[in-house]
Amino acid sequence: MVSGRTGVATRELVLLTGRGHPELARSVAEELGVAVTPQAAYDFANGEVFVRFEESVRGADAFVVQSHSAPVNDRLVELLLMVDAAKRASAKRITAVVPAFPYARQDRKYAGREPVSARLVAGLLKTAGADRIVTVDLHTAQAQGFFDGPVDHLHAMWLLTGHVRARYRGEGLTIVSPDAGRTRLAEKWADLLGGCPIAFLHKTRDSLRPNEVTANRVVGDVAGRMCVVVDDMIDTALASTTAARELLEQGAKDVVLVATHGVLSGDACERLVASEAREVVLTDALPIPHERRFPGMAVLGIAPLLARAIQEVFEDGSVTGLFDGNA
Amino acid sequence: MVSGRTGVATRELVLLTGRGHPELARSVAEELGVAVTPQAAYDFANGEVFVRFEESVRGADAFVVQSHSAPVNDRLVELLLMVDAAKRASAKRITAVVPAFPYARQDRKYAGREPVSARLVAGLLKTAGADRIVTVDLHTAQAQGFFDGPVDHLHAMWLLTGHVRARYRGEGLTIVSPDAGRTRLAEKWADLLGGCPIAFLHKTRDSLRPNEVTANRVVGDVAGRMCVVVDDMIDTALASTTAARELLEQGAKDVVLVATHGVLSGDACERLVASEAREVVLTDALPIPHERRFPGMAVLGIAPLLARAIQEVFEDGSVTGLFDGNA
Amino acid sequence: MVSGRTGVATRELVLLTGRGHPELARSVAEELGVAVTPQAAYDFANGEVFVRFEESVRGADAFVVQSHSAPVNDRLVELLLMVDAAKRASAKRITAVVPAFPYARQDRKYAGREPVSARLVAGLLKTAGADRIVTVDLHTAQAQGFFDGPVDHLHAMWLLTGHVRARYRGEGLTIVSPDAGRTRLAEKWADLLGGCPIAFLHKTRDSLRPNEVTANRVVGDVAGRMCVVVDDMIDTALASTTAARELLEQGAKDVVLVATHGVLSGDACERLVASEAREVVLTDALPIPHERRFPGMAVLGIAPLLARAIQEVFEDGSVTGLFDGNA
Amino acid sequence: MVSGRTGVATRELVLLTGRGHPELARSVAEELGVAVTPQAAYDFANGEVFVRFEESVRGADAFVVQSHSAPVNDRLVELLLMVDAAKRASAKRITAVVPAFPYARQDRKYAGREPVSARLVAGLLKTAGADRIVTVDLHTAQAQGFFDGPVDHLHAMWLLTGHVRARYRGEGLTIVSPDAGRTRLAEKWADLLGGCPIAFLHKTRDSLRPNEVTANRVVGDVAGRMCVVVDDMIDTALASTTAARELLEQGAKDVVLVATHGVLSGDACERLVASEAREVVLTDALPIPHERRFPGMAVLGIAPLLARAIQEVFEDGSVTGLFDGNA
Amino acid sequence: MVSGRTGVATRELVLLTGRGHPELARSVAEELGVAVTPQAAYDFANGEVFVRFEESVRGADAFVVQSHSAPVNDRLVELLLMVDAAKRASAKRITAVVPAFPYARQDRKYAGREPVSARLVAGLLKTAGADRIVTVDLHTAQAQGFFDGPVDHLHAMWLLTGHVRARYRGEGLTIVSPDAGRTRLAEKWADLLGGCPIAFLHKTRDSLRPNEVTANRVVGDVAGRMCVVVDDMIDTALASTTAARELLEQGAKDVVLVATHGVLSGDACERLVASEAREVVLTDALPIPHERRFPGMAVLGIAPLLARAIQEVFEDGSVTGLFDGNA
Amino acid sequence: MVSGRTGVATRELVLLTGRGHPELARSVAEELGVAVTPQAAYDFANGEVFVRFEESVRGADAFVVQSHSAPVNDRLVELLLMVDAAKRASAKRITAVVPAFPYARQDRKYAGREPVSARLVAGLLKTAGADRIVTVDLHTAQAQGFFDGPVDHLHAMWLLTGHVRARYRGEGLTIVSPDAGRTRLAEKWADLLGGCPIAFLHKTRDSLRPNEVTANRVVGDVAGRMCVVVDDMIDTALASTTAARELLEQGAKDVVLVATHGVLSGDACERLVASEAREVVLTDALPIPHERRFPGMAVLGIAPLLARAIQEVFEDGSVTGLFDGNA
Repeated sequence: MVSGRTGVATRELVLLTGRGHPELARSVAEELGVAVTPQAAYDFANGEVFVRFEESVRGADAFVVQSHSAPVNDRLVELLLMVDAAKRASAKRITAVVPAFPYARQDRKYAGREPVSARLVAGLLKTAGADRIVTVDLHTAQAQGFFDGPVDHLHAMWLLTGHVRARYRGEGLTIVSPDAGRTRLAEKWADLLGGCPIAFLHKTRDSLRPNEVTANRVVGDVAGRMCVVVDDMIDTALASTTAARELLEQGAKDVVLVATHGVLSGDACERLVASEAREVVLTDALPIPHERRFPGMAVLGIAPLLARAIQEVFEDGSVTGLFDGNA
Repeated sequence: MVSGRTGVATRELVLLTGRGHPELARSVAEELGVAVTPQAAYDFANGEVFVRFEESVRGADAFVVQSHSAPVNDRLVELLLMVDAAKRASAKRITAVVPAFPYARQDRKYAGREPVSARLVAGLLKTAGADRIVTVDLHTAQAQGFFDGPVDHLHAMWLLTGHVRARYRGEGLTIVSPDAGRTRLAEKWADLLGGCPIAFLHKTRDSLRPNEVTANRVVGDVAGRMCVVVDDMIDTALASTTAARELLEQGAKDVVLVATHGVLSGDACERLVASEAREVVLTDALPIPHERRFPGMAVLGIAPLLARAIQEVFEDGSVTGLFDGNA
Repeated sequence: MVSGRTGVATRELVLLTGRGHPELARSVAEELGVAVTPQAAYDFANGEVFVRFEESVRGADAFVVQSHSAPVNDRLVELLLMVDAAKRASAKRITAVVPAFPYARQDRKYAGREPVSARLVAGLLKTAGADRIVTVDLHTAQAQGFFDGPVDHLHAMWLLTGHVRARYRGEGLTIVSPDAGRTRLAEKWADLLGGCPIAFLHKTRDSLRPNEVTANRVVGDVAGRMCVVVDDMIDTALASTTAARELLEQGAKDVVLVATHGVLSGDACERLVASEAREVVLTDALPIPHERRFPGMAVLGIAPLLARAIQEVFEDGSVTGLFDGNA
Repeated sequence: MVSGRTGVATRELVLLTGRGHPELARSVAEELGVAVTPQAAYDFANGEVFVRFEESVRGADAFVVQSHSAPVNDRLVELLLMVDAAKRASAKRITAVVPAFPYARQDRKYAGREPVSARLVAGLLKTAGADRIVTVDLHTAQAQGFFDGPVDHLHAMWLLTGHVRARYRGEGLTIVSPDAGRTRLAEKWADLLGGCPIAFLHKTRDSLRPNEVTANRVVGDVAGRMCVVVDDMIDTALASTTAARELLEQGAKDVVLVATHGVLSGDACERLVASEAREVVLTDALPIPHERRFPGMAVLGIAPLLARAIQEVFEDGSVTGLFDGNA
Repeated sequence: MVSGRTGVATRELVLLTGRGHPELARSVAEELGVAVTPQAAYDFANGEVFVRFEESVRGADAFVVQSHSAPVNDRLVELLLMVDAAKRASAKRITAVVPAFPYARQDRKYAGREPVSARLVAGLLKTAGADRIVTVDLHTAQAQGFFDGPVDHLHAMWLLTGHVRARYRGEGLTIVSPDAGRTRLAEKWADLLGGCPIAFLHKTRDSLRPNEVTANRVVGDVAGRMCVVVDDMIDTALASTTAARELLEQGAKDVVLVATHGVLSGDACERLVASEAREVVLTDALPIPHERRFPGMAVLGIAPLLARAIQEVFEDGSVTGLFDGNA
Repeated sequence: MVSGRTGVATRELVLLTGRGHPELARSVAEELGVAVTPQAAYDFANGEVFVRFEESVRGADAFVVQSHSAPVNDRLVELLLMVDAAKRASAKRITAVVPAFPYARQDRKYAGREPVSARLVAGLLKTAGADRIVTVDLHTAQAQGFFDGPVDHLHAMWLLTGHVRARYRGEGLTIVSPDAGRTRLAEKWADLLGGCPIAFLHKTRDSLRPNEVTANRVVGDVAGRMCVVVDDMIDTALASTTAARELLEQGAKDVVLVATHGVLSGDACERLVASEAREVVLTDALPIPHERRFPGMAVLGIAPLLARAIQEVFEDGSVTGLFDGNA
């Protein structure tokens, strides 16, 4: 009925990456059996970023992998430019793969006249042209709703609990949240590890000076327990190491610190080494350079999880198995 | 330089209301010293809603007050129709005043292939023409970011803590979260009440049957304490009354149940009456009909809080004082 | 030229349905030779709706069938939630199949300060994520333009005229519009039935009381004729049965009442039974429960029409044949 | 509380006009007591339009008056350019005043693969930057819903019925619709004129050749009556003069032709002069040049109606009185 | 995993064309080996355009070819209507192929209170439903950014330099820009032709009368040179023929005038014939009717360039080769 | 007619600033007679930016001043966060005052698969909530069209030509463009300075290695002239100092380098000092720290120009005088 020409629609999986964490992109590419598309990317002297893909992405199913390590804003702008370039170069679908979502912690206004930064970032990605997002362990699951399109929210919990189970099973585990706000996460860990008890640190503030913590109290029983402190992120490691100290003071047998995202800014590594935590367990969702690693730090590879999600998106399969029932 | 005519811009505050909670709208109107704009509103036989304002809203600063009691969807559609009507009738600015945000609990996907209903509702309000939202005690503060515009997120905590302080000061208060996910709220209450201890209920689930709670354990010390269980909402009252029972079993001296939103669906009132809680404290953000009230229930009026926020929005003043430092 | 992997693009037809008219969805599924995708859907105690698809819709060509019987708003919100869920679950294309478009009659402002409800509904569907709409016999064809995307506007006229032709041919047909506003529809019927005469009911109003009909006058010759009263919808049946009475008083031989959408609210069925109409002919675009059916009512199945349209959309074929030349 | 400077907000009414009907704009300006803002506007040799306002419109309440006489597309593009220029020149609010909405008749798809042109025009106006629309007697009232913002839909019916009442009262009026689709309009006229009878022309088509009218039949009694044929527009005057002839053949005493918009394209004027209609009554919503006027044509001025609507929009007053209860 | 039906996705290339330059569309169709889809298109008496495709475009990859010769606004509106019709008829992707982008010269505000017409046109195409644009030699390359989607910006420079090289190689070429603003284009030509010198005409204006050119000075050496004056467009030919005269007065050996777009409005052809330019070289991106052609005019066919771009878009191949490195 | 309360609308001018160039913001504030609103702003350890306004901006006319010096991306993200915060804090109107528009040079694709970065930035500002933009000397004026709203495009040319005229009048000025692409700017300078001659540098490239300049040739007469090299920006100073050297080699009497934006990255200052240019003239649109200044550099203050534009925007006056007739 149509006067035109007919062809079978095919699609290409194209993997693009910025300069945030190229090793991770290469690992993902290996898992997928593709090559990362070559790309010119450099900074002008004033810091402006230039990018250009060296191969066609026309009609492709493009996955742009970017990890938001410091300097975060440069990584974010680079990602936006890559998405814009892919859109203008006629990629058919563009998925931003951001293992560590930038500004994830600023997901609400704590006081008036603040931005909701994570929402802004989601909006910027949409404006640049991203059709969908793949991310890992958002600070709060509600941030999924900030993006007006599909978000595949993956969880490193299985990976991390596997490590903990293999190494510490039978040592009398108690799962500990380092603050009141993440107790629900501890509860999920406890369920996954077969129902062990949980505890959290209660921070007391003076209502006249709300930003000042006047005391930390452990709520729950930790004496003699193997305490696993779980969080989405270890940034300055102040909260984690304070927790470790409190727990040991309350009689904990030992402490393991676990998180998906190792920001490790400032003196974090020094603090962690100095703490009496038996082990620090992270993933490589954010790059952890070799000079910042130390004995007692385990870094689990996140690439298989990302590759599997990309694969399912490309094949229109289901990734529910990857993120079922939590966050 | 302009050939035209000049006039001083004035603005009118117009208060509109749907059929969700007209008493509350009237109370707000009294606080503001205005009348609620008369409106025709009825349901067609098949359930379709018809609305028409009986007075002009052209150029007005319109505040549409709607409370989302059951039947929620009828209230929501009525609100959307009112906002659309105000837009087409040339209101200059439209603020949806929704003391109890509809679908607030569905603010993320718990599993795959679910909607993010609260985000959808925010998008629907935007599409209908709402410029801003005033709401009270969202289920999670992150939902502010679902709306692409200003959200004044008010808190009933001062109101509620005032009541608790006046009545129970000196009785050895412990603030209790009915589940792990709201421990942070308990912490804020504890700070506001001068640093009392907190506790929460740990729900254990079998990892093979994740929707089934196999046990409730109180984490924190409650023996001999006057326990105040705080939540954003009491719906079926199952969680609250279970908590009350557990706390009393663990030796609590007494239990008070407090929440902003009294949904009170199904047998909630019966459950609350049957529980041994000393008092149930709610606000009238949702209507609580007289036949559902009982001795031992306190219902605090939310109208002054809403009126003050509307006043500040109308006068472009600051409402930071109403919601500072919390969620 | 691309470093990536290539696959042939396929597509899946997925049929989803809300609780508005599951029998119709099943009939459509049978026509198409597919199964309706299983879905969890229930109402919370306060009336909020929960939905979740039990199978993956990732990458699918999703058709969401929902009929807007009472309670209309619950059906509408359920539909919006399903579309949102399909969007977030990465359906490739989402078509809302709404045989009876909700709020279709409120397609303009009759006076100031009213919503244009049908336009609002089209906007809400777009916001939720619907890419296209399939509907049957809109109240006015202009409402197609309310949706910013493709609308397949199907017509039950062929179905209905087939029934009338088979049963009443040779009885001296006159096609009657129950009011002045739908005379054009009567004209189309007359053309399809080979050029029979038409008539309509002229409602007289007092210009000082515009909502009050002071008289009904039949315009056109009906004495001794077999009168077929055609409309898009029978709601309360007041207009239809008034028309029937007037026609018989003016000497009509007999009266048949025909409409696509049987809303049948309130005492409609009683009125229809009590009228002296020889037959009432409807489709099942809206569900007509068995207890509301009566001898002298014919309900024609609309599923084949919907299935054929879905088929053509899925195969990118042409549905012009289904709706050519009318409204 | 703010560190800044405060000023009282004022607003200027600025009247801009394209080249579609400058006399009408001047009449409106006179009614309002303002001057039309001077403007450079000319066509480049290839037909591209250039416009520039000669005075500032920054912060103004700008009303852009354009009438869509032939060449319609040039007028439409000029209007869009003016709206864009006003937006970029920082007008605070832009109202497109289009007495004759362009492409109003193409408000739905008659067959597949046609545009919905009136919807497109509404979308183009929105894209260019129009905040609201003032228009007169749309072809169908539903087209209001095509614009996503306030539409003030004015009616010339009062103006026109006033003329008819003054001149033909007591002559036994029958209101006639020239086709089945506008019978409802005739009914409204009849109500306004105190309840006189109505009739319409039934056009018969062969179902195999749907675009060909095979016969015109008058439905309703017209013998001995003073027939007033009412329509929204007289374009080629074929329908109107055919109606006049049919009515006279059926024994009508006399015929008057009335419409809001006098497009009068092709041989329309010749046809009207040659018809035996006693009078042709139009408004100047579209320009009717003096050389096209003839004895027996009355052209009523629409400027007071437009000026009053603009005044009310500027002052945020209510224009409901101008368009109450009809379409 | 899906209950539905599966099919392989295919796609059809459909070529649609308006009435701007049907010969070009036919040439493109021949190059592609397809037929132009038949279409009804005519103007109503008042200038409104009507279009309807005579064959289905459902699911097609539709390319709408329109050239913007005079009357430009009619061509533009026709194009917008065709895009809207294709969108509503469910084309899967719509590419506007506009060899000569309308209003390309008005791509910025020269003074305040002017539109940015080219940006407006890009916005209108987006609103109508265009997914992408193919165009040739925009007035400035920045206008690509006006469209929020992929723009394939093709260049006729290779075609034109091929002609110049073949005919004038070895004659001592100097590339001349007719004004200061297009010197960069001359530089690119010079590079492509192996590094020949360039020059431009400096127009002096009195700062008090900025729109008046008081003198033309040639900057660069042209004495004894074969001067090739390059521009994107020859409209009235005033600039080109002024340049030719100046160059010859400054001792140029000969002058050739080259441009992609031959608007040739007003007395352009007379001016060109009367000038002493040796040859005028254009493409048929805009139609150049036979009666306007003259000996000494060469018109190069642009269809192969367009066809190759369409082909690559359809096949998701890369068109970088067609427009690499220039503007 | 309205039941509500009436107030006169006032507006506050609020001046906010990021950390890009606080001195400039303070100068602007002084000119305006307001204080810069206090603001908390700091970087988290991983580089994420936090901002909060310390005073209410509710209902204010907010001007956010940010200069995009290195690190550009941090400045850009900070600006976006401030605009988002102002939007969510209910500012009535938000104007981004960006004297040096970020990524202004990347305003088109030079080759395929590049972003159009300046367009992206304009889109990001819109998404964050900016209603309008004030900027100075965009790289190309077309970039105004990238923002879908009013852009006040100011020009430093009057400031700069004033300086040149005062200091070099009578020295035989020739205005020189450092490359072919900015010859038009030189022409405007020449007009403003009373009609002096112009010249430019022709860069020859090998067509096989398009990014490599193989020679610089001066086109135009510069021997014995006082050459003023004008550009929008001096970044690495390579182009400027190359031009200076070429001009002197061609016999220029002296060279002055002028630009609006002094990026001065890398060794720019060293290069400028080492060049034989008599003077380098810049503005402080970008911050030029004292340690980078040197004798022979003049830095003209841009604050009065910005303040006047802000003033006119706030008062809805006309700024045409500030940018009339150029780009």
